[in-house]
Amino acid sequence: TNQACLMVHGLDRPGIVAAISSTLARHGANIVSLDQHTDDPAGGHFYQRTVFSLDDLVVARESLEKDLTAELSDRFDLEWSLTSRSTPKRVIILASKSDHCLLDLLWRHRRGEIPMTVPMVVSNHTDLAEEVRAFGIPFFHVPSVPGPDKSAAEARIVELIRGNADLVVLARYMQILSPGFLEGVGVPVINIHHSFLPAFIGAAPYRKAKERGVKLIGATAHYVTEELDEGPIIEQDVVRVSHADSAADLQRRGADVERAVLSRAVSWHCDDRVIRTGSETIVF
Amino acid sequence: TNQACLMVHGLDRPGIVAAISSTLARHGANIVSLDQHTDDPAGGHFYQRTVFSLDDLVVARESLEKDLTAELSDRFDLEWSLTSRSTPKRVIILASKSDHCLLDLLWRHRRGEIPMTVPMVVSNHTDLAEEVRAFGIPFFHVPSVPGPDKSAAEARIVELIRGNADLVVLARYMQILSPGFLEGVGVPVINIHHSFLPAFIGAAPYRKAKERGVKLIGATAHYVTEELDEGPIIEQDVVRVSHADSAADLQRRGADVERAVLSRAVSWHCDDRVIRTGSETIVF
Amino acid sequence: TNQACLMVHGLDRPGIVAAISSTLARHGANIVSLDQHTDDPAGGHFYQRTVFSLDDLVVARESLEKDLTAELSDRFDLEWSLTSRSTPKRVIILASKSDHCLLDLLWRHRRGEIPMTVPMVVSNHTDLAEEVRAFGIPFFHVPSVPGPDKSAAEARIVELIRGNADLVVLARYMQILSPGFLEGVGVPVINIHHSFLPAFIGAAPYRKAKERGVKLIGATAHYVTEELDEGPIIEQDVVRVSHADSAADLQRRGADVERAVLSRAVSWHCDDRVIRTGSETIVF
Amino acid sequence: TNQACLMVHGLDRPGIVAAISSTLARHGANIVSLDQHTDDPAGGHFYQRTVFSLDDLVVARESLEKDLTAELSDRFDLEWSLTSRSTPKRVIILASKSDHCLLDLLWRHRRGEIPMTVPMVVSNHTDLAEEVRAFGIPFFHVPSVPGPDKSAAEARIVELIRGNADLVVLARYMQILSPGFLEGVGVPVINIHHSFLPAFIGAAPYRKAKERGVKLIGATAHYVTEELDEGPIIEQDVVRVSHADSAADLQRRGADVERAVLSRAVSWHCDDRVIRTGSETIVF
Repeated sequence: TNQACLMVHGLDRPGIVAAISSTLARHGANIVSLDQHTDDPAGGHFYQRTVFSLDDLVVARESLEKDLTAELSDRFDLEWSLTSRSTPKRVIILASKSDHCLLDLLWRHRRGEIPMTVPMVVSNHTDLAEEVRAFGIPFFHVPSVPGPDKSAAEARIVELIRGNADLVVLARYMQILSPGFLEGVGVPVINIHHSFLPAFIGAAPYRKAKERGVKLIGATAHYVTEELDEGPIIEQDVVRVSHADSAADLQRRGADVERAVLSRAVSWHCDDRVIRTGSETIVF
Repeated sequence: TNQACLMVHGLDRPGIVAAISSTLARHGANIVSLDQHTDDPAGGHFYQRTVFSLDDLVVARESLEKDLTAELSDRFDLEWSLTSRSTPKRVIILASKSDHCLLDLLWRHRRGEIPMTVPMVVSNHTDLAEEVRAFGIPFFHVPSVPGPDKSAAEARIVELIRGNADLVVLARYMQILSPGFLEGVGVPVINIHHSFLPAFIGAAPYRKAKERGVKLIGATAHYVTEELDEGPIIEQDVVRVSHADSAADLQRRGADVERAVLSRAVSWHCDDRVIRTGSETIVF
Repeated sequence: TNQACLMVHGLDRPGIVAAISSTLARHGANIVSLDQHTDDPAGGHFYQRTVFSLDDLVVARESLEKDLTAELSDRFDLEWSLTSRSTPKRVIILASKSDHCLLDLLWRHRRGEIPMTVPMVVSNHTDLAEEVRAFGIPFFHVPSVPGPDKSAAEARIVELIRGNADLVVLARYMQILSPGFLEGVGVPVINIHHSFLPAFIGAAPYRKAKERGVKLIGATAHYVTEELDEGPIIEQDVVRVSHADSAADLQRRGADVERAVLSRAVSWHCDDRVIRTGSETIVF
Repeated sequence: TNQACLMVHGLDRPGIVAAISSTLARHGANIVSLDQHTDDPAGGHFYQRTVFSLDDLVVARESLEKDLTAELSDRFDLEWSLTSRSTPKRVIILASKSDHCLLDLLWRHRRGEIPMTVPMVVSNHTDLAEEVRAFGIPFFHVPSVPGPDKSAAEARIVELIRGNADLVVLARYMQILSPGFLEGVGVPVINIHHSFLPAFIGAAPYRKAKERGVKLIGATAHYVTEELDEGPIIEQDVVRVSHADSAADLQRRGADVERAVLSRAVSWHCDDRVIRTGSETIVF
């Protein structure tokens, strides 16, 4: 494919769309789809995702980027990124013992549904090693160490990830990561929380949901920040439950929502559809 | 109609279903639908809803109730209630200025969708008087009094309700009611909270939802208890929102969910489908 | 408000987005939101909706339209329309005896949820006259005539509508309209069909749904064309049903879906979010 | 587990519930959950599903069945079946090249979510052999023969299935089966159709859905009868799509609905929750 995606955001001012589209047109690009959002017409923020096709993208790229720098960075003080649609994201997945989120991602990956490669899976348990390797994907076991100091295990994981990933996905990875981990990997981290946040923050959400007697249970995929379960939400969904469902039933039915929500979030991220805006996300 | 509904609950023991159905059969009743639930096969609680038809129900009722007392109360120590399906519940609605939940209930009432009568609507504002009276329903204005002591206004409302209602519905009634109010009215009270509880407990849930960047907003209908927003949940639902929705959009879209959820909860309660079990509900 | 909406569609060619946005920028407009879609990057069709703010829109409009004609019509051979966001659509509603779709539209209109005025309601029955007039809206009764020739009644309705409406909505209007009607009114006509099209085309869909034993029932809002129930679909939705629901239950639960689907479709049309493309719609 | 499920249906008469529950009580059984439905209180059909626990079920079974025969068959002329909850259904799956429905069933089977065993998978292609065998399940390849006469291939499949299955599942098995196949296997057959039936009966539903411009696509799990796509529906669901989705997108998103719908239908069947009633199903 000769398609590319241009993501732009920053302070809104008149003329940005014209600047972007004129620059693209000057280089002979044809816009395939364009989504633009301004959170406040008077002095708000500007967000735009533009997918365009351009022959000989590899050759034309340097010249195009130079013009985008002049138009967007210098003239409008905007942040932007340009990605070729033919370069999949490198996604490293961390898992523990639960297989539902991990397998759904690997299965979609094999079907070609998500524009990603999976360089490796890292787990603090060995339960899923065989499954992962059956997909032709390297599996690394980094055991959790008991006690409060997780730095050695984290350092080992960071060593594996650093430079090899564009995205890290916590597919029901049951370890709390330190703020240093985020800094260490240097790429976005997406987590799946097994509740409809901000309901049931923290541990054992299905048990809490059963005790509270809710009629819907949910799952939330979000970027990981230093605050537990407080990062920008990418996607959420729910499923109906009833009094007849035990806490184990909730967990089983919730697993279906978890895997669906996480797969959509990862898919959108890899498709360059998500822009973070402080505590929220724009999903185009 | 000659149909009645028998609701039974208590400690589970073998033979309860047989006792209920045999008693009904002895009186010539034909069971139309039966839902039974046990929360733990070993020593849990028993819940059953039975709808049956019986010719000359009015005449046969005394004798049937005597037998049910012997079989259910005396022999099995169960709680039960028998209601004729031809006697609608008397539902008094409290509202403030918002019309969406109130009008949806009155409109469904007029269409005959909910087995209820509405003896009156009480509001702390006069905005909705004309609307309510156009439905042929009495409207009473009981203004809120400023300051912390709401006892005079509450006493006036209790005076209107007491003895005239089988259910009180708070259709976006924007006043905190005291524990004494619940005791005073002496019947169940259903409230609609404009969030997916337990997320966004308390005031301004749509603003909080916008700030948190959630991708779904919801509403929760629950029985009112002394703890704010903590009563047993009857029904919940959600609707998808996006970054393009302002807080005002959330409020508008949420109103659709609120009215749908409240109407379902009231409908189920009036149809004798809901049993309270401490902090939860069984909805048959 | 000083906002306007520009809808553009036609054969795709490189440079269209740049032409539109540059023209707007030259006139000092600030783009608030922009959605663009191309159904085939190589030689497909181009669709774009642009909302922008422009001071003194009334004054600037003539000059802007002249430039848009030069850029879009002459240079790119595109179709476009420019509407001021401060001018609501004039929507005339046709109804029969059912009130649910009609009242939901009138209620949302009163709340200011839909950018429309309702110059009149026309019905072939008088049942809803009082309800409509309570909203302060004129009601006209045009009785259906028995027999196959409906031309007199239709002519009377066309006489009422022609020149007074930007959109006609059939809110469960239970008369088949002739092809001449569409031509006569000269504006788009939206209908609500009480099934998930193309399932259960034609009469009595709820009875057919009950007989087929479906587990979901739905509703479809579509533009009316000469072919019955074959026009471009704007919106659809479904609700879950079960064996316990009678045909009457399906009808009652379906009514909730019908009013929601029709209100969304009318709202999107009035908000200039819908572009017809032969047999389909683009909904931005 | 010592639990069993009793399914009863036939012409409704007063006293059936009492007869069932008294018989169970006499044998010391404790009812865990009971669902009963009558499609018409006056002379309709009676359906009941009862789950009960009974110590030493294996020993007590013969005596219980004798009494059920006397009470239900002889006295009330009802059909009934008694199944032990500790005996999983034997489910043989037929597949072609698509893996999504098959793998979802095998994955849920491995997690213990569905009370079934899978004695074998039969396919007319070899693509999925390795995947299936990785689950420890036998895989048989029975190639389709070109031409209209499929009897030889069908006979081979029937030979494999007959006596070894309680249920046959067509997990996107892309061959039309003859009426003789149904008779040959002698057990219920469940199929997944990739549309919301009765919309888009027959081949290529996603292409037809794209052409019609629907806003939701769906899937339908149904029992197979002699009429193609006309058998009793067990479960249906839908997912929202838009103009931006290509026919390939519809197929991909539809695959998620297909696997979810088929897994629910198979799960409910294996859990003895489904009763066929001519052209419909009761799902308790």
